[in-house]
Amino acid sequence: MSSFDEHQKLFLEYLESSLPRIPPENLYRPARYILELGGKRIRPILTLISTEVFDGELKKALPAALAIEVFHNFSLVHDDIMDEAPLRRGKQTVHKKWNVNTAIISGDVMLIWSYELLQQYPQDISFELTKLFSQIARKVCEGQQLDMDFPNQKNVFLDDYMNMIENKTAILLGCALSMGAIISNASNDQVNEIYNIGVELGLAFQLQDDYLDAFGDTEKFGKQIGGDIIENKKTFLHLYVMANSTERVRNEFNYWIKLNPKDSNEKISAVTSIYKSSGAENAIKNKIEYFSKSAVLKIDKLGLNPKKKNLLLDFVTKLVNRSF
Amino acid sequence: MSSFDEHQKLFLEYLESSLPRIPPENLYRPARYILELGGKRIRPILTLISTEVFDGELKKALPAALAIEVFHNFSLVHDDIMDEAPLRRGKQTVHKKWNVNTAIISGDVMLIWSYELLQQYPQDISFELTKLFSQIARKVCEGQQLDMDFPNQKNVFLDDYMNMIENKTAILLGCALSMGAIISNASNDQVNEIYNIGVELGLAFQLQDDYLDAFGDTEKFGKQIGGDIIENKKTFLHLYVMANSTERVRNEFNYWIKLNPKDSNEKISAVTSIYKSSGAENAIKNKIEYFSKSAVLKIDKLGLNPKKKNLLLDFVTKLVNRSF
Repeated sequence: MSSFDEHQKLFLEYLESSLPRIPPENLYRPARYILELGGKRIRPILTLISTEVFDGELKKALPAALAIEVFHNFSLVHDDIMDEAPLRRGKQTVHKKWNVNTAIISGDVMLIWSYELLQQYPQDISFELTKLFSQIARKVCEGQQLDMDFPNQKNVFLDDYMNMIENKTAILLGCALSMGAIISNASNDQVNEIYNIGVELGLAFQLQDDYLDAFGDTEKFGKQIGGDIIENKKTFLHLYVMANSTERVRNEFNYWIKLNPKDSNEKISAVTSIYKSSGAENAIKNKIEYFSKSAVLKIDKLGLNPKKKNLLLDFVTKLVNRSF
Repeated sequence: MSSFDEHQKLFLEYLESSLPRIPPENLYRPARYILELGGKRIRPILTLISTEVFDGELKKALPAALAIEVFHNFSLVHDDIMDEAPLRRGKQTVHKKWNVNTAIISGDVMLIWSYELLQQYPQDISFELTKLFSQIARKVCEGQQLDMDFPNQKNVFLDDYMNMIENKTAILLGCALSMGAIISNASNDQVNEIYNIGVELGLAFQLQDDYLDAFGDTEKFGKQIGGDIIENKKTFLHLYVMANSTERVRNEFNYWIKLNPKDSNEKISAVTSIYKSSGAENAIKNKIEYFSKSAVLKIDKLGLNPKKKNLLLDFVTKLVNRSF
């Protein structure tokens, strides 16, 4: 068993034993449902890896790992309402399976539950974890708000986008890694450095998501290709074209944006070509490589023994190649 | 200036200086809006009173008092979505003034903010406050869920109702008082006892709300009389009639429940008569008196000096008579 699989197994057992099976059923059943929908459990596994890297006790990391996963799922439940998403991991979203009210209040109790999990630690550890967690949680909300603002915002620049994905997605990966370091009594420098590594990984991960939406393999990616293109979502690729192409290309791009064809294949393939010809594809690949390499460099500088270092590097490779 | 007015002034100045004036505006403006809508600020004032009672420093109590008020307003914002309420304190609710998505995410960030406020304390105090706060916050969600379940639930008993209002409303008053005691380094017994006092006050307060909806003076109560009756809300009065009256009276009651008249005055006056004749009015008055007296007895037993004791007793009188 790879260490990834081992961590996943350990986490899933803990998750299963921690699911709230108390009344009111209408409050807690949706929470169990979303948490049992699956997913790769990247965030809690990051906490476990980081704990192992800094010589902490894996068992002790489980409540924090679960806090991160419960928080992540809280944000999915509320984001899915806001995005009117019918499906999540191929199954009905909570507000579709039940209703919006249920999704709101179940999400709320999940957010509170994630805090409760952090209160299982000794005072000093709990204090540090909770402080970090609140900062991150607030910024995730800010990121979600920025994302919701984009469609109605006239000028969205690449920097705005990078700021949005940093808050909405990347910093939670940083938080997951930091928590492992805090639990293991790592130094402040180590806690900060592993946080930065997580943020860069998160940025690479999200940009990879944008890239795969346009250029991915449907089967491997697990979702429909071109979803962002159909929705005219202001992704990195989209914003790159708007910022960096000639008027002629921008006009062509705008033509396709305004078009809402029944058969979207033509639109997807036209926009994808523009992404290639305008240099957007190259630019995003470069960015992904930049953040991955920078994360690897920072891992090198942590001064870990080869075994621990490889634990982290293996995960980076898995994450960037989506080879879980 | 009465001590109530003094506490209110102190709190309002702190609130004003603490309102988040940072971007994204669409996230934080609704939070400022709801917090500036007014209200009597009963909960934060309870924290200040308790701090004074247990010889703590008033200034130190302000972040906890604000945490309670921010949490309370978070729950109002989300509850108003769920109840489809158009108005709150005579002004548009957040989801009406903006939209449901804005109300969800602004509520979320307020919940997180309330936790952040508790992290301004030294480690040991912060740990205790956060632990208590999480327990209460979770139970408030459970109470809200129970309340949402009632309309579709065939048999709702008086005990279910008391359990619901205890969770949804009363324990937050207990929490507000406990926090003042924790901040003032009161003993565990004192923290628990003041909590119980708060819960009983909260129960009396909520039952008084039910009573005033049927028997209050529109001008003094500040809202339309009979709102609960028009909605057939399963309040204490409603459930008392269902549980404790003859078949003839129950049939008459059910007749009015099924009726949805354009002019609701006749329904309100008929149902109010049933509340009187069935003994529901007396029963709720007795309950209110029971909880108020029990709270006063517990205050007596705290062994406070007369000045501190009167501070608490004055508030109890104000709360039960709604004479703020």
